[in-house]
Amino acid sequence: MPLLNEVLTANQAYAATFDKGDLALPPARAFAILTCMDARLDPAKYAGLSEGDAHVIRNAGGRASDDAIRSLVISYKLLGTKEWFVIHHTDCGMEFFTNEVITGLLANSLETAALGEDGFYDVGTGPGSDAAAEIDWLTISDQAQAVVDDVAHQGTSAGARPHPGPRLDL
Amino acid sequence: MPLLNEVLTANQAYAATFDKGDLALPPARAFAILTCMDARLDPAKYAGLSEGDAHVIRNAGGRASDDAIRSLVISYKLLGTKEWFVIHHTDCGMEFFTNEVITGLLANSLETAALGEDGFYDVGTGPGSDAAAEIDWLTISDQAQAVVDDVAHQGTSAGARPHPGPRLDL
Repeated sequence: MPLLNEVLTANQAYAATFDKGDLALPPARAFAILTCMDARLDPAKYAGLSEGDAHVIRNAGGRASDDAIRSLVISYKLLGTKEWFVIHHTDCGMEFFTNEVITGLLANSLETAALGEDGFYDVGTGPGSDAAAEIDWLTISDQAQAVVDDVAHQGTSAGARPHPGPRLDL
Repeated sequence: MPLLNEVLTANQAYAATFDKGDLALPPARAFAILTCMDARLDPAKYAGLSEGDAHVIRNAGGRASDDAIRSLVISYKLLGTKEWFVIHHTDCGMEFFTNEVITGLLANSLETAALGEDGFYDVGTGPGSDAAAEIDWLTISDQAQAVVDDVAHQGTSAGARPHPGPRLDL
């Protein structure tokens, strides 16, 4: 079955028994979680969320990027969240490369790289692209410091109370 | 119970029976979902995901922001996703304001606004901040066009195949 059909079929099954259509727009438990896009993380499960409870913002690394701050300010100013959690995890892909590495990989080819003992290496054929050279990829060199940095960055941005959540051990 | 303790308690309960610690870093089903931070959305449930299946990127509106593109390029180039879904929803908070509205609300006060029939209005006392005046808040004026725009923006950015997912009806 094509992936699109798998997703649509799963969605139809969920919708068929969905009975929470009257939930309010503002999060009922008035908080937000900023966490990583990592496929192994299910924030609803790991933090005990039901539909309607909390905003969940996810990106590569769970970083307090400008876009995460945009989302958190909306979460606070318009939708009333009072606390924000930054939740990172061990074995994060963002620890396994640097700006220089991904810039080089993308310059080399636009095919998916492989991950070996010494980090990511390219297996594709070119041409690549140098369009990524100016991007800050927000990689992580120190797990604990990354959470501290992301909480501090939020703290200067809006009125809700940010704090680190549990670090998930994968 | 303080919110932090609620989250920690829920996390401990989940961790106590967690038996998927050997999942691989790359998503097993090789796809990513870009969707909204809205508290009423549970992507794992609405798309049928188990831990390890797919990257999930979430921000205010599920928009293809620069940070979402950063995450998607990492998802494709380093972790091998082949398809990306943009999944928006009805009754999205991003339809209820404009850049001008939120800039004005933040300039007025840093307390949470209220939502009335005519949109958000401020109930707080100042001072506010004009630090947000230069931000593009990526609001949505047309639900369908927003998905088209976000898929198109992804399409110019990397090699995976982006397409719209089901629009969720909240």
